[in-house]
Amino acid sequence: MEATAVAAATALSPSERWLVVGHGSVGSFLTARLAANGASVFVYDPDPRVPVAHGRRVDGPELPGGPVGLAISCVPPSVAGAVPEVLNAAVRADGVVFDWNTVSPSLKQRIRDRLVPGMVDVALLDSLDGASEEPMLAVSGEAATAASAILVEHGFSVEVAGEHVGEAAALKYLRSIFMKSLEALVLEYASLASTVPAESIVRTSLEHNLGERFTSFMDLLLATNRIHAERRGLELEDAVATFSANGSHPEVAAAAVHVLRQAAQAWAEPAAPQAGASLEALADHLHRTLWREAAST
Amino acid sequence: MEATAVAAATALSPSERWLVVGHGSVGSFLTARLAANGASVFVYDPDPRVPVAHGRRVDGPELPGGPVGLAISCVPPSVAGAVPEVLNAAVRADGVVFDWNTVSPSLKQRIRDRLVPGMVDVALLDSLDGASEEPMLAVSGEAATAASAILVEHGFSVEVAGEHVGEAAALKYLRSIFMKSLEALVLEYASLASTVPAESIVRTSLEHNLGERFTSFMDLLLATNRIHAERRGLELEDAVATFSANGSHPEVAAAAVHVLRQAAQAWAEPAAPQAGASLEALADHLHRTLWREAAST
Repeated sequence: MEATAVAAATALSPSERWLVVGHGSVGSFLTARLAANGASVFVYDPDPRVPVAHGRRVDGPELPGGPVGLAISCVPPSVAGAVPEVLNAAVRADGVVFDWNTVSPSLKQRIRDRLVPGMVDVALLDSLDGASEEPMLAVSGEAATAASAILVEHGFSVEVAGEHVGEAAALKYLRSIFMKSLEALVLEYASLASTVPAESIVRTSLEHNLGERFTSFMDLLLATNRIHAERRGLELEDAVATFSANGSHPEVAAAAVHVLRQAAQAWAEPAAPQAGASLEALADHLHRTLWREAAST
Repeated sequence: MEATAVAAATALSPSERWLVVGHGSVGSFLTARLAANGASVFVYDPDPRVPVAHGRRVDGPELPGGPVGLAISCVPPSVAGAVPEVLNAAVRADGVVFDWNTVSPSLKQRIRDRLVPGMVDVALLDSLDGASEEPMLAVSGEAATAASAILVEHGFSVEVAGEHVGEAAALKYLRSIFMKSLEALVLEYASLASTVPAESIVRTSLEHNLGERFTSFMDLLLATNRIHAERRGLELEDAVATFSANGSHPEVAAAAVHVLRQAAQAWAEPAAPQAGASLEALADHLHRTLWREAAST
């Protein structure tokens, strides 16, 4: 089985056709990048969150020209466990599936156990909202080293995390603990800052200690929270649950889950500023909505 | 009164003698810097946390040569309100007190009301643990502009926050909400990372998004937490209480207070690594101690 997966990954031709399952922000990014590199890409998503602008949309696992050699699964975590049956029908037995889902290490292993093709555990360790030319990935699994060459070809910066499926997923969750909690902290800070005269002096001091790159990223987190608050809150919740099951008890991260959940509600309000609104307008809305419940009790 | 304070600050001679009240990490830093610039400095602290290596230690407000024209109050927040009676005896009525304490805006105002000399509210918006050549300050109060010139002479980077005592203090608390919560998040992250193989890949990804300056500061926060956890936890608690009284309810920061408190306990244990220990040893100790209670219930 190990040897088969590695052999499959190394024997794949650069002209293999691809299937991307799931067309949210990651799926649409990947489809566009593969297509731009000249790959032939099918897209399967019964209800795509992002309109399909690249690749060829299909309605099920019966692909024109028969099964593909390469596939990516990048769906919401809640449905990741249902993708193997699509992939087993749409990908050749000697093909490779890149499981790009943000799910727990144990679910990654259960997905692998149900897949006929080989599987590589892929974790995106980067923000696709920034302008990263070579998004950073961690991969793990028996065929990780061979499969990483394929991802490097498509312009990713790839680190092999280990030979076991689940090791890349653990890194993703560790990163989420930091980045999603930081996002919640940035929301709280921006909300409080909107009430303090001369708050720009504090921002300058943060930039002085943490660097201009960091304060720019704070702005990016606030702006993209408007779009991703709910998904990121659920991701952080899953990460906290996984580490807690191992005996840890991250409290800042647990509070951050709650803040991201409240933020998602705040953005869903009719009075919420739109996605392109100024950072000031976003922070001001958070201040008016985040602590309303606490203030009234 | 306003005119008097401003006149006092502008009329002071560059050769004025100084009194520094409180000799902890900030007081010792300030005494050393003033002395290095050729100022004559008295130090008053009945129980100095840092040994007095610069300036001339005194036992009470009766200073050799009579009252001084310039003084700094930089004591633990719990005793800041008791310093005015020392200062009223040790500082000339036409002198200026720099209140460098990290206390609430309202306590700053009460201190000013009890001082005979003029007072400037000073907030340190920088880390003295890093190697900042010109530490950043915010100042506020009637004489802030005139007084800031004196601080600039001594190598500080000074921003005037406003003309009311308390405005600089509010900026300090806003900064604390972010920086002390970030510190707690860094502790949690380092603790969890110590259990994950290949965690250095995640660190690289954080550096990729947030900059090398930021990840270096993460290390500084972990190392200095070993020394400052308790003080920073109390400072954050005060900041949370002040913003909460204004109707906000920062949850991430409130969780961070608890983490910093637990960290202070962890460092007080006999088995805790010493201050100069490696970051790995510090993180490992946090992992063994931070969640013990949670794990046993």
